[in-house]
Amino acid sequence: MTLIDGRAVAATIREQVAAKARALRSTGATPTLAILVPTDDEATAWYVRSIERMAEKVDVRVRVVRETNDIGACLAELSADPTMHGVICQTPLPAGMSLDVLGRHIDTAKDVDGANPVSLGRLAVGLPAFAPATAQAVIELLRAHGTTLAGTDVVVVGRSSVVGKPAALLLLAENATVTVCHSHTKDLAVQTSRADVVVACVGRAQILGAAHMRPGAVVIDVGTNPTADGGLVGDVDTAAVEPIAEAITPVPGGVGPVTTALLLRNVVSAAQAASASSAQE
Amino acid sequence: MTLIDGRAVAATIREQVAAKARALRSTGATPTLAILVPTDDEATAWYVRSIERMAEKVDVRVRVVRETNDIGACLAELSADPTMHGVICQTPLPAGMSLDVLGRHIDTAKDVDGANPVSLGRLAVGLPAFAPATAQAVIELLRAHGTTLAGTDVVVVGRSSVVGKPAALLLLAENATVTVCHSHTKDLAVQTSRADVVVACVGRAQILGAAHMRPGAVVIDVGTNPTADGGLVGDVDTAAVEPIAEAITPVPGGVGPVTTALLLRNVVSAAQAASASSAQE
Repeated sequence: MTLIDGRAVAATIREQVAAKARALRSTGATPTLAILVPTDDEATAWYVRSIERMAEKVDVRVRVVRETNDIGACLAELSADPTMHGVICQTPLPAGMSLDVLGRHIDTAKDVDGANPVSLGRLAVGLPAFAPATAQAVIELLRAHGTTLAGTDVVVVGRSSVVGKPAALLLLAENATVTVCHSHTKDLAVQTSRADVVVACVGRAQILGAAHMRPGAVVIDVGTNPTADGGLVGDVDTAAVEPIAEAITPVPGGVGPVTTALLLRNVVSAAQAASASSAQE
Repeated sequence: MTLIDGRAVAATIREQVAAKARALRSTGATPTLAILVPTDDEATAWYVRSIERMAEKVDVRVRVVRETNDIGACLAELSADPTMHGVICQTPLPAGMSLDVLGRHIDTAKDVDGANPVSLGRLAVGLPAFAPATAQAVIELLRAHGTTLAGTDVVVVGRSSVVGKPAALLLLAENATVTVCHSHTKDLAVQTSRADVVVACVGRAQILGAAHMRPGAVVIDVGTNPTADGGLVGDVDTAAVEPIAEAITPVPGGVGPVTTALLLRNVVSAAQAASASSAQE
């Protein structure tokens, strides 16, 4: 079985992003990502630091903004700021708030992690829009592995607004036959074990095992579930699946680094678009 | 096999809609639907007349507007008109135009046929929005037949922005396990013949037959394909499927009348919302 090396895929993306960011900087523009951090969540803090580290490598500036109260207004303000090219909001949000509701305050032109429902709607009808970077990473990893998507049976396990649904839409746009499973699915193993490609994005540690895979399946594991000893495991039991699957993305080192690289690619694309439109004015 | 009687389902919906429309009229509001007609297409003219006929039955006013050039501006104008509660645009559009692009000019509060990508995005993340009436009709007919949707395997054949994708999203919201098939699907019969429910919305005459169905399947036929003798047939070969399926919607008399009834229900809901918000001011 092949482990699909997310770190290598991410490194290739970052090289391209760095070249574009340098070109933009030479025209006086500084591609900049604003990250709104709404809580003291530790995993959030860790992820924000990893974005900052990667951003530095590709010459993208990051501005971290702490705001726990008026998150919608803050996202709107950052969207209105011409020095910001991308705006994202970390989750979890404070109790009672939802990014599905607050995402609309992010200008779609700067919605580099596809949090505004308008971006998802545009994606659904095939209009240009940023998809959530995690959903994009699913496609990018399958492409990097050389998986043909047209006509392929893909089963997506999970239906969140940030991964499952946008990944399903992107896979459909690639002409895959797409099934979305979730907690109400009658017999998950029956569904997944007929798939050429399984995308696991449930957020439950190692719930997919040998019985869920057919020989030769390609498995993209989006899950990042913390373990008792401070590590991370995916939604797939990799050891159990190893003798059966053709390829799988490891956790960590699979979807995660590619997601961050694509987020930065989106920031640079947004900065390029802003620069092109200001040149026209 | 049961024929699911769309006309009866539509009649029940119309009764409820008529009662709500009367209540609104008693407060001085007249629920009104604006229909933009962009071409001389005969099928369009036929459909518009049938909406007018049904609207009259439920006390909803219809205003038909002919506009072939500046369709976006016209949709925006109708949306801004406080006497219009719902705005729809008929297809086909003139060559080179697409409702996926022009739909954004319809205010989401009046987007009673879910043509604005924003409506689709809100639907995808579970926020209140109008779905395309045809997609809603799929759910309504399954409910009327008594089909349990949670955990049910549904295969949607077709992935358009007006039927396939929104129907898939609505079915997911009902906790069905949803597969979307299309022209690139490798073996359509393998996919559909494992489904509890098949939703056919390809727009190709009778392409689904006996080999595509499993015994006891419930079939919703969204297709309306004109025949040489001036009749209509669906995407399903009803005679072939009859000995196998448990139930099917006929064409005509299935999805069509329910779609029109739901469109009018959406207009009355939009008028109620407008009336409630003006009362608050």
